[in-house]
Amino acid sequence: MTRSRALDPDVCGVTAAIAVIDGKWKTSLLWVLESGAHRPGALRRRLPGLSEKVLTQALREMEEDGLVHREVHDVLPPKTVYSLTDFGRDLADALGPLSDWGHRRLEQLRERGAAREAAS
Amino acid sequence: MTRSRALDPDVCGVTAAIAVIDGKWKTSLLWVLESGAHRPGALRRRLPGLSEKVLTQALREMEEDGLVHREVHDVLPPKTVYSLTDFGRDLADALGPLSDWGHRRLEQLRERGAAREAAS
Repeated sequence: MTRSRALDPDVCGVTAAIAVIDGKWKTSLLWVLESGAHRPGALRRRLPGLSEKVLTQALREMEEDGLVHREVHDVLPPKTVYSLTDFGRDLADALGPLSDWGHRRLEQLRERGAAREAAS
Repeated sequence: MTRSRALDPDVCGVTAAIAVIDGKWKTSLLWVLESGAHRPGALRRRLPGLSEKVLTQALREMEEDGLVHREVHDVLPPKTVYSLTDFGRDLADALGPLSDWGHRRLEQLRERGAAREAAS
C-alpha cells in the first residue's frame, strides 16, 4: 500500500481521519480490537477472508499511525498481542455516529432495491 | 452507541457512509451547505479550485444519494439553489467527531515533522 504520510496541510480533518482507516479491513480491526487485546490468529478468526499478509500490513500501518499497540511477550515461541491505544479508541468512538448513519443509508438502499423488484 | 459488531466487513456502515462522501469535495460541500442554501456560483466562490464540471457532478451524486435538495426557481434565467436535506445534515453532524479526531492527527503529524526538522 503506498500512502503518502505527509498529508497536504490543507487537507480537512475528515480526509486525514479517513486516510488512516483506508482499505478494506482497518475499520473492522478497530471494532474487533475495541473488545480487547487480540493475538493475530484470533483477529483472523474474527474476520474471515482477511489474509495473514494483509493483516500484517494493516497492523503495521495502524501501529505507525498510533492506533494500535503491539506487545511481544517473551515466551517460546514469542507471543504477540495487539490492543488499541487511547488514540485508536478515540477514533473508534468518533466512527460510531458515522457507522450509524451508514446503516441508515444501507437500509434505504435495501428498501429502494426491494421497491424496484416489487415494481418489476 | 448501538453498532452491529457482526457486520459483513464488505458493507459496514462506515464504508457505506464514506462511499457517499467519496472524492475531494463532497465533505467541503457538506460543510458549506450546512451554513445555508447556496447557488452553484456561490459554492464555487467558497471553494477555490473546484471546477464547474466537478461541482455539477458532485451535486448530482449528492442529490441522488439524498444528501442535497435542488430547487429551481422559475425566473429568467432559471435560478438553481442547493440545500442540505435532513439526511445530509445528519451526515454532516456524524462527520463532526471524525473531523475533530482528524485535526488531532494532523497536529501530531505537524509536530513529528517539526521534531524531525529540529533533529536534522
